[in-house]
Amino acid sequence: MNTFGNIFRLTSFGESHGAAIGGVVDGCPAELELDLDLIQAELDRRRPGQSALTTSRNEADRVELLSGIIDAPPSESGKARPSVKLTTGTPIGFIIRNADHHSSDYDALRDVFRPSHADYTYQAKYGLRDHRGGGRSSARETVARVVAGAIAKQALRDLGIEVKAWTAQIGSIACERDWTRLNLNQIESSPVRCPDLNVARQMEELVLRVKGEGDTIGGIVAGVVTGCPAGLGEPVFGKLHAQLGAAMLSINAVKGFEYGDGFACVSQRGSQLADRFNADFTTSTNHSGGIQGGISNGMPITFRVAFKPVATLLQEQPTVDIHGQATTIKPRGRHDACVLPRAVPIVEAMAAMTVLDAYLMSKSAKLS
Amino acid sequence: MNTFGNIFRLTSFGESHGAAIGGVVDGCPAELELDLDLIQAELDRRRPGQSALTTSRNEADRVELLSGIIDAPPSESGKARPSVKLTTGTPIGFIIRNADHHSSDYDALRDVFRPSHADYTYQAKYGLRDHRGGGRSSARETVARVVAGAIAKQALRDLGIEVKAWTAQIGSIACERDWTRLNLNQIESSPVRCPDLNVARQMEELVLRVKGEGDTIGGIVAGVVTGCPAGLGEPVFGKLHAQLGAAMLSINAVKGFEYGDGFACVSQRGSQLADRFNADFTTSTNHSGGIQGGISNGMPITFRVAFKPVATLLQEQPTVDIHGQATTIKPRGRHDACVLPRAVPIVEAMAAMTVLDAYLMSKSAKLS
Amino acid sequence: MNTFGNIFRLTSFGESHGAAIGGVVDGCPAELELDLDLIQAELDRRRPGQSALTTSRNEADRVELLSGIIDAPPSESGKARPSVKLTTGTPIGFIIRNADHHSSDYDALRDVFRPSHADYTYQAKYGLRDHRGGGRSSARETVARVVAGAIAKQALRDLGIEVKAWTAQIGSIACERDWTRLNLNQIESSPVRCPDLNVARQMEELVLRVKGEGDTIGGIVAGVVTGCPAGLGEPVFGKLHAQLGAAMLSINAVKGFEYGDGFACVSQRGSQLADRFNADFTTSTNHSGGIQGGISNGMPITFRVAFKPVATLLQEQPTVDIHGQATTIKPRGRHDACVLPRAVPIVEAMAAMTVLDAYLMSKSAKLS
Amino acid sequence: MNTFGNIFRLTSFGESHGAAIGGVVDGCPAELELDLDLIQAELDRRRPGQSALTTSRNEADRVELLSGIIDAPPSESGKARPSVKLTTGTPIGFIIRNADHHSSDYDALRDVFRPSHADYTYQAKYGLRDHRGGGRSSARETVARVVAGAIAKQALRDLGIEVKAWTAQIGSIACERDWTRLNLNQIESSPVRCPDLNVARQMEELVLRVKGEGDTIGGIVAGVVTGCPAGLGEPVFGKLHAQLGAAMLSINAVKGFEYGDGFACVSQRGSQLADRFNADFTTSTNHSGGIQGGISNGMPITFRVAFKPVATLLQEQPTVDIHGQATTIKPRGRHDACVLPRAVPIVEAMAAMTVLDAYLMSKSAKLS
Repeated sequence: MNTFGNIFRLTSFGESHGAAIGGVVDGCPAELELDLDLIQAELDRRRPGQSALTTSRNEADRVELLSGIIDAPPSESGKARPSVKLTTGTPIGFIIRNADHHSSDYDALRDVFRPSHADYTYQAKYGLRDHRGGGRSSARETVARVVAGAIAKQALRDLGIEVKAWTAQIGSIACERDWTRLNLNQIESSPVRCPDLNVARQMEELVLRVKGEGDTIGGIVAGVVTGCPAGLGEPVFGKLHAQLGAAMLSINAVKGFEYGDGFACVSQRGSQLADRFNADFTTSTNHSGGIQGGISNGMPITFRVAFKPVATLLQEQPTVDIHGQATTIKPRGRHDACVLPRAVPIVEAMAAMTVLDAYLMSKSAKLS
Repeated sequence: MNTFGNIFRLTSFGESHGAAIGGVVDGCPAELELDLDLIQAELDRRRPGQSALTTSRNEADRVELLSGIIDAPPSESGKARPSVKLTTGTPIGFIIRNADHHSSDYDALRDVFRPSHADYTYQAKYGLRDHRGGGRSSARETVARVVAGAIAKQALRDLGIEVKAWTAQIGSIACERDWTRLNLNQIESSPVRCPDLNVARQMEELVLRVKGEGDTIGGIVAGVVTGCPAGLGEPVFGKLHAQLGAAMLSINAVKGFEYGDGFACVSQRGSQLADRFNADFTTSTNHSGGIQGGISNGMPITFRVAFKPVATLLQEQPTVDIHGQATTIKPRGRHDACVLPRAVPIVEAMAAMTVLDAYLMSKSAKLS
Repeated sequence: MNTFGNIFRLTSFGESHGAAIGGVVDGCPAELELDLDLIQAELDRRRPGQSALTTSRNEADRVELLSGIIDAPPSESGKARPSVKLTTGTPIGFIIRNADHHSSDYDALRDVFRPSHADYTYQAKYGLRDHRGGGRSSARETVARVVAGAIAKQALRDLGIEVKAWTAQIGSIACERDWTRLNLNQIESSPVRCPDLNVARQMEELVLRVKGEGDTIGGIVAGVVTGCPAGLGEPVFGKLHAQLGAAMLSINAVKGFEYGDGFACVSQRGSQLADRFNADFTTSTNHSGGIQGGISNGMPITFRVAFKPVATLLQEQPTVDIHGQATTIKPRGRHDACVLPRAVPIVEAMAAMTVLDAYLMSKSAKLS
Repeated sequence: MNTFGNIFRLTSFGESHGAAIGGVVDGCPAELELDLDLIQAELDRRRPGQSALTTSRNEADRVELLSGIIDAPPSESGKARPSVKLTTGTPIGFIIRNADHHSSDYDALRDVFRPSHADYTYQAKYGLRDHRGGGRSSARETVARVVAGAIAKQALRDLGIEVKAWTAQIGSIACERDWTRLNLNQIESSPVRCPDLNVARQMEELVLRVKGEGDTIGGIVAGVVTGCPAGLGEPVFGKLHAQLGAAMLSINAVKGFEYGDGFACVSQRGSQLADRFNADFTTSTNHSGGIQGGISNGMPITFRVAFKPVATLLQEQPTVDIHGQATTIKPRGRHDACVLPRAVPIVEAMAAMTVLDAYLMSKSAKLS
């Protein structure tokens, strides 16, 4: 299914080398002030070609909003605000045209299954596939997520909720795990989007070295949601962290998700992890990661997302064709040696949609 | 929301100390042979009091199926099969009465928020809560999952698909990560449900030591799905591993999920993780964990689930009451020092439901 | 699918002659005062055997609520209220045991398809069926709807919204179409539930005559929702009247639905049907039936539901068996000559659930 | 919610005078041959300006498919088929640009609520509205339905299922009710789309007379689905006719829905309506309208849809503004005096989507 969310819902479409990527945001509350420049700014954070670290595929990725908005009135000082719109509560359709097709790069791949890609599985499921650039399985589909996430972020801002993500690890190079000791204002100060600039430099060097080898490398994106009130998330199957986990695991190349102390708490004792209450119901520690029993407790929500090294290499690779015959993939096309820097805005987008949706769901917990 | 799944759906209800736990399995295919004894056997694997390691709460946990089934015909040899039913395609309602209430144990907790429990968050969300034994937030709700999972397992068996889970780590004591080197027939041979019996003994000792201290300890459950055909799972938001991850993260005390090489692949190179195809489209390695682009590739699906040490301690703990006044929780009631052994059938149940649902969804990928 | 609703959701289960009918009400707001006696009273309105007009199947239909509620505090005057509960926001599971089985009545029908029943269609869909009393296709499943509707009604009452339905026509005997000229307090004063007691008497006579012939007769149930605020309902596919129509059409034996002026407006001119606004945005007429563009406008919501004469006759009927061989159905078992009187509380239940669900959905139309 | 369907799903967006109308078709089976010319032909049947009877708003309504398709191979004779595509199983995004804006026509309506329109209800629900041409409440949104329906029709054609609708009544002028006595090949032979050409001429005269008066008139569209196998539709809440009814009631201006004998069976006896089985499980009559217990029985599915006269008049009308002040609406803009002819392809589209969705759902009724 190509729909995400329960009330605030994104339905997306589009292939890597089709006419356009796009989507429909349904359930966006009305009367929200939407700054189109902020949406475009998020797309710019995701777009390829923004630094030496990323793929040279160069797409301007201009989004066009087709519905669901009307012009906002002038500011209080009477200044026109052409980039500001008001949501009307009706669905926001949008498209981003695919500009930079090199489809012929992929002709050699028409009848070949690339290792550790989704070529074979799409063929198995559907009986055919769009082989150009991975088709629907390409990470290019995430542009639609970034648009919807940028809308969700503006709604969350009005609620005092903020979502931040950053590159916490690339290969074996990791920054401090406790986000309160990091300067999150520095995330955008390095091309790898790691707020510890010393670590960022090491990460950058590693990525360039791996890129030079035609290889790829994975890493971890960490995230925090601050300002989230207590009471978001549904018991049992709709636990807030289960929805957040599903959101993250739906991003290409993600192999794992943890929240709060995550996998590390496996070797701790219960007595070490108890988050003691203060008189105002905040807790003195936050091992729980802001969620208890699937419902937010008002503390910051913390989580981490593991990305594998992407499978597209600039190296010759043995594989098979659709008849099972051995063949070889020649290095061609463009790729990211490390997707982490560009994954940061995608992680933020998915977290923003998840939290906004949980907020809207929580409104029906009581009658009035 | 208390419903799990798209086509094969479990809707569950019930609190720890209410009249009953129960649920409705909707979308179960018709004409399935359902052995009620196998359902009960799965409940017995989950039930408390089954070994010295688990809580002494002693519930027989007898399930009663109320609808959706009719008597099966005799076996080919003419033997009556009273425990075998046929599903009719209509919803299967079921209940498990709560027999062993010690609700008065919880009177002292009526106005107290236990640290790292869901007491405060339920109160924040709903304005009130059932304080007895954690109410709906108690892991007792998982009995409904085990019933539904036992039904799903029997459907999967007819498709040649099998789900196995085991305790892979408790505290710092871990068994071999590669499941192909383990004897999975030995899972039930130890009370901790670790197939490496040497490691199992060490785990058992650790749990008993922690229990003696009134403390708790976490761990990792690993799982594998074998016999799964290629083509299950939906692209983009409904990726098979995203659904599997959401399923696992919805289990009480789960803090993390990974599949295939998971978090470990962060520090690997893409060239190290490429799963090369064989001529029959199997792969020579399985770093991917049986899923590519969110769709199964026919290889075994492997995953791991991190459980925190549960928050209920047999130790005095400082906390606050619902007015924010400092107070102390006295050790009372019963608890599991380590939930891992009893979590194994729950993990299997959630995996079975997820895979069966994906299978049923996959039937509409083609028209005929 | 056996689930109704988006936020306030009923998932039901149970066959006519199985162990029990039941369901789960999910998404019921917390802190609602629920009077169990009012739920039982609605079941009593639906139950068979309440008058000479209805089937003699005599079921006490006692509902047992299994979860999602806690005891309500005493009334302000200190009086205990044992039948009053508070909802906790968690799912309300319930069952009604099937007491009065005459399953052997149906042995002759095991291999026979009754005309205009669902025997053949269930067999075609599922490959087998529970032949006893129609199994899941029996109108007995509507007891679960009445329970959930009785809960919804109590929530609506707190919002000042009331749902009323009545028998408006049986055969060719019809009462006044404009509900404002009827005394709706008299609905329960006649066994046919028609508020015009003169017409009611004629209806009663007709039903008894038809019953004496072993035949059956249809009719129309009319309904009105008063006190509904403007703004409920979703544009486009989730129009309030589309949801209401689907709710009504899901009731056994319903063949048609109309709202406002319905089919009658076909032969009117647009200029005749314009509902002119008053200064307070009420309208001077209500041809629209309280809904414009799928969204409630604050005027009473009016609708009508057509029921066919049920297919179970006390007459010999020719038909075929499952091999297509001609056979005859002998009159036996019990039946309603006219379902209208007992359909009234079912129509009310479905309308109450639909409106409450729309109310809860409408809370997310704006951010705060 | 702006999504229709369970597996075959349309999510639509767009306002009357925004940039575009569009949608996403998700869940369309893969490997379907899709003729784009047939999609355009359906749009041409719906488009304004096609005859003297319809609004003079003149939109070419060219649809652009943006994803989910790849080029089809040449025909067996080697001929290229540029208008034929293959579906890939991934979502089909599409847009239709709004070409013929006369938004300034609507400036006078910015602060006015038109009687019997959705102006007031949108304002009540969302706190603001797009006043130009009715915004999202305009019937212009139905272009998205026609596109999705045209895709569904091509899938149904491959299954041998056909959907036909026609104008059965305008004002008091009605054609024969029994479709088997009509020549459905003549539907497109008259501008009103009534297959009885004598009746069609009378309808046409009536519409022109009403149009001359600046007034509007309603009517009934009848439909039939042939070739539908037994077994489609879900029991209880997802009955096939409940889904079909919801689909029809979601179309602008629809006030009622009936299937089979519908409201007319109210005054019949059960013995008159019994559809007797033939040896091949067809029935000798079809009072049931092809559905028993919510599940198709293999006979033609028949239904009727009541449309009110639309509320836009070319007459001066008294109303109120958004402050409740009395004002007058001057006749301007363009409108249809009778929407029936253009509603026919919309009814067909909704029926086609409903039946295809039910077909895809039915695949999971059995395991293999």
